[in-house]
Formats: sequence, structure tokens, C-alpha cells
Amino acid sequence: MKFPTLVEDGGSILILDQTRLPREAVMQRLATLEDAAHAIRVMQVRGAPLIGATAAYGVALGLADDASDPRLTQVIETLAATRPTAVNLHWALTRMRRVLQESAPATRRDTAWKEARAIASEDKAANAAIGQNGLPLIAAIHSAFGKEKDNPRNSHSGKGGDYSRQAAPAVVNVMTHCNAGRLATVEHGTAIAPIYAAHAAGIAVHVWVSETRPRNQGLLTAWELREAGVPHTLIADNAAGLLLMQGKVDLVIVGADRIAANGDTANKVGTYLKALAARAHGVPFYVAAPLSTIDFACPSGAAIPIEERAAEELAAGDVAVANPAFDVTPAALISGIISERGVALAGELGQWTS
Amino acid sequence: MKFPTLVEDGGSILILDQTRLPREAVMQRLATLEDAAHAIRVMQVRGAPLIGATAAYGVALGLADDASDPRLTQVIETLAATRPTAVNLHWALTRMRRVLQESAPATRRDTAWKEARAIASEDKAANAAIGQNGLPLIAAIHSAFGKEKDNPRNSHSGKGGDYSRQAAPAVVNVMTHCNAGRLATVEHGTAIAPIYAAHAAGIAVHVWVSETRPRNQGLLTAWELREAGVPHTLIADNAAGLLLMQGKVDLVIVGADRIAANGDTANKVGTYLKALAARAHGVPFYVAAPLSTIDFACPSGAAIPIEERAAEELAAGDVAVANPAFDVTPAALISGIISERGVALAGELGQWTS
Repeated sequence: MKFPTLVEDGGSILILDQTRLPREAVMQRLATLEDAAHAIRVMQVRGAPLIGATAAYGVALGLADDASDPRLTQVIETLAATRPTAVNLHWALTRMRRVLQESAPATRRDTAWKEARAIASEDKAANAAIGQNGLPLIAAIHSAFGKEKDNPRNSHSGKGGDYSRQAAPAVVNVMTHCNAGRLATVEHGTAIAPIYAAHAAGIAVHVWVSETRPRNQGLLTAWELREAGVPHTLIADNAAGLLLMQGKVDLVIVGADRIAANGDTANKVGTYLKALAARAHGVPFYVAAPLSTIDFACPSGAAIPIEERAAEELAAGDVAVANPAFDVTPAALISGIISERGVALAGELGQWTS
Repeated sequence: MKFPTLVEDGGSILILDQTRLPREAVMQRLATLEDAAHAIRVMQVRGAPLIGATAAYGVALGLADDASDPRLTQVIETLAATRPTAVNLHWALTRMRRVLQESAPATRRDTAWKEARAIASEDKAANAAIGQNGLPLIAAIHSAFGKEKDNPRNSHSGKGGDYSRQAAPAVVNVMTHCNAGRLATVEHGTAIAPIYAAHAAGIAVHVWVSETRPRNQGLLTAWELREAGVPHTLIADNAAGLLLMQGKVDLVIVGADRIAANGDTANKVGTYLKALAARAHGVPFYVAAPLSTIDFACPSGAAIPIEERAAEELAAGDVAVANPAFDVTPAALISGIISERGVALAGELGQWTS
């Protein structure tokens, strides 16, 4: 059985409680505004796209008994206050507010459910498109292996001859960070979507999964890659530089929590270190995210608020702790942004405003 | 009470069991060769200089009942096989072998204890000198604060006037990685030695302590900094890039497990990522280590063996794991090497061969 990250169930929703993964897969019912806000805050649901969809349903849940203007404002403010960095949350709430303000209170509840459903459905479609748009990047690396005679992947026991035809099956090694797979979305994932697309297309892919301290979301990525049958290896975040130096990584793809208009990208803390190491070794570094993650009102990474989370996440007793949950990767280190619209240079996102 | 990392006790030695820190401070008796080899292998003692001293005493323990030539060879081979990357282990064993081969079997046991004692004593002296040699680097940053009128550390409520005199006390923020403090040595530490020297000299220092996955040796650093009264904050390894980007780090100092002749430095995995981020933000990055850590027979980092440790260290159940314990930071990213002889450019270590 494949557990969905979020499904409607009567007048409430069921979410896969990600704080209990990978130990156990348990669906948790969210029946009220408070349930939804709590689930986002404590990261029972996480990942920018899934946060956005959950917040949209949270608005619908919050209007169950009172769909008045003041209640709508209260509901949206409660959800907006849950997490500061992921812009999809605010994108979804802004969209819900706009639609619901145009709707009479008597029909608001139905309208809210309909709009939340549309947001969830569009997220699935966008991520499927991200997978198809990112697939050629992986396929191109795979094709190139056959043409590099000195690539160790293509070593063979015979002498001379046609290397590309005698080559052992080439595996594309992709590194990712945190979880930007199906668990971070309603379906398909963002950074992992092109990997799933490549796997489905018969291209051999192996994924380096970073543990992602302090909350270990890498274990979520390992869990869903196993579910999908995609080969993968878990590493400590610290090992990323060595693997890149050793030539064991062909491509890095990460998700995003907010992309500024200039392409600077906030993502799970540690992303920036991987981007620096990828650049140092000439390995392409891509960000995959739906358009709802691009904040065109935010000029650059310096304007993105960085969430500081509880010291307890590091489980270090009474030692003083700093625990920023995100960092900012400058656009200059990003080879491209993969969205449902295609692949763009980080400095040329303006093409997607129209 | 301050627990020593290693002390003689009759015909055996006592070591502070670092696998039980920071939960509890327990001295563990090592009475045999097997005890010493086990302690190094499972990291009850760790840190290149302390591994070297423990191995030297391990030779003395191994000769208790039999000081013949074959036994000496066996003892040294057993200890040499415990851990591959830290060169101090091999340096200490080579030194013990040289001295003991010149000694008749009848006097070897006494000679071994005497030489191990000398290695431990010299380690203390070398690290104290590293502290004094590194102190000016911290003092220079501290002095510079007073002269930078636009440094936020020197902001004051008055208008105009003499900024440097009215400045609030400036704190030098040093980032380190893993534990290269007194716990990694017989005494004083390597990377932390200059910090202790600055603290003793009345310079306000604050240390960013990286958790250092997968074994969390950052908690050892936090433990000993608290013992010494040095302010510090624990972070996830992933947060290092953001802190450097935010200007919250003035200096990075790390230890080393093996420094190649060209200055390339193997140290705890994750060091390289910090070096890349320090370079990206123009923050000085120093390596502190005694001469015994420099392997002049090793031309470059590419020749340094990287220890692969058990998957269990990541505690990820049955997920496939890669767990390299070290990485290599190229000399070009290192501002200087601090040893007991002074501070040298990483590319100019040859001056210390004579």
C-alpha cells in the first residue's frame, strides 16, 4: 500500500504523519483549523508544496462553523503564522483569501473546499511536469557516459573496440538534500520528480541521500526511494564535499522553500554548502520547484526570512544552540531552476511572470 | 575536578572514555595491548595526537610479558591496524619501534614506558606552543574591531566621538569542527589551544561548535568549552554556510588527522565544506596541528587513505549507508597551518623539515 501525503475524507482530511516516519506509516485526521495549524507547525506535514496544500484545506476546515469575514481573516492569520520561510504557504493563503473574499459567506465553505482541491490537484500536475522537464538533464548525462572513453563507468575487460557499445550499464549519481520527494508534495515530489521520471524511463539512477540534520528528513527520502525501488545510499551531510571531490556525483538537485525574483533560493539549511561544493567540482546544481515557490515580490535572498527552530531539535541537553532551518543559495551557484514551465537560468525567472 | 584524557596508573594507564561523554565522565583502565587497540578502534580515545600517545603506551602495555623482537613486531602491527587516517598513530609507532629496536629486550619494557611518557609530555608542550602561536591571529582580529568604525560590534548610543574607545566589548567568533580540543590530545588541544590562550589573555571569544555527524564529537567540544568557561553555541553541521554568509564568523580553526607535504589536510569529514564556505566569504581558515601530524612522505591529499566506518554510526536501520570519516581540504583553501614551530602557509611546510 502506498500512503498518500494528503487526502480528503468526508469533511476533514487525512495526512501521513511525517514525524512518525520512517518508523511507522500512520494517517492522521485533521478536522479543525487548530489541527491543520498544529500539523504544519510541528512538521507532521512539511515540504513547501505540501504545506501550501495543507494550509488551503486548513482554511476550509476553519470555516466549518463560521464563514464570516472576521473568521476568514482569523483563519488565514492563524495559518500564516505557522512557518515563515516557505512561500507556498502564503501563496496558497493569498489565493484562498482572494477567491473567498469574492464569495458570499453562505457559499464560502463549499468554495473553500473546491479551491483547496484545485490547489492540491494543480500541485500534482505541476510536479509531474517538473519530472518531465528535469528528465532530459539526467538523460543527457546518461547518454554522455557512453561517449566518454575514459569514463570508468565504461571500463570493460576487452581490449580496444567500441567502448560505448561494450560499456557496463552506466548509473547516473544524483545528490539531493532534505526531502523534496513525494512526501514534500501532494504527489510526485519536486527535486525527486526528475529522478522518478528517469527511473520510469529505464535510466539507471542512484541517489546520494543526505541525512539532513537536525531533523533527519533524509530518512524520509530513503523511505520513499525504497518504496519506489530507486537505489540510494544515505550519507552524513558532512560527506557531501568528499563525494563531490571523488567524482561520485554527476548532478545535484534540491527543492526550494522560497525562490527570490533574482533566483536566490532558500532551502533546507545545508543546501548552500552542497552548492559551493558542486561548483568547486564543476557538477551541475539544479533547483526544482513549482512556480508557487517563486516569490516575485522578494527581490533577493537577503529579504527571505530564515526560520529559527527549537534548540531541542539538536537534542543537546542544556548546551546553547542556534538552529536556523534554512539557508540561501545565491543564484550564481545555481545551474538552473526546473519548474512546470521548463528549465530556466536562475537569473532569468522573469520569463515565467507572464 | 578536571578529568585528564590519559594518565599512567601503576603498570597500566587510565583514559577518559570519550564514548560516554558528555553523559558521564568515566576513567577506563587500559591494562593490555588489546585494551589499548580496542580503545583506539571504538574511539574511547580519539583525536590524532591522543591516538598517537595512547598507541605509544599501548606498545609498553604489549611488552609486559614478552619484549622479544617478534612480539614487538606483533604489538606494533596490531596497533597500526586500528585506524588508517590519523598519521600520528604511525608516527608514534615508528618512533617507538626505532627506539625499542636499539634497546635490548631486557630493558625494552622500561624504555617503552619512558618513550611513551616522552611522547605524551611532548604533546602537551607542542599544543601549548600551538596555543601561543595561534593567539596572535585571534588578537589581531580583536584589535581590528576597535578600528572599524562601521563594525556593528562597535556601535554605541552616543553620536560622533571616538568609536574605538566607546566600543562595546568586541567578541571574536571562531568556528571549529569536530573536537580538536584538549580531549583530542594529552592536554591543551590543537584547534582549541589558541582559543584557550585567547580566553586566558582576556580576549572575549565565542565558539561556533559543529555537531559533527555522525558521531557528534561537537558535544565533546561543547563539554570541554563549558568546563573551561568559554562561551559557545552548538549548531547542526548544515548551518555553517549560513553563519559564514551572515558575517557571524571571524575565523575558522580546525585540527587535522594527516597533513600531506603539499599542505592538503585530511580532517574529520565536513571540514572541506567549511573551508569552501570560509573562502566564499573571505573568512580566514586555519589548521592547527603538531608536527607529528604532518606526513612529509605523503605528497598530496590524494594519497591519504580515508577511513570508512560502520553504517551503524548513522543509526538508519537497514538503509544502505556510506560513512567516510574524513575528507581532504586542498592546501589552496587553507590560510595557514599553526604548529608548535609557528604559522606557515600550507604550501611552505618544507621549512619545518629541518
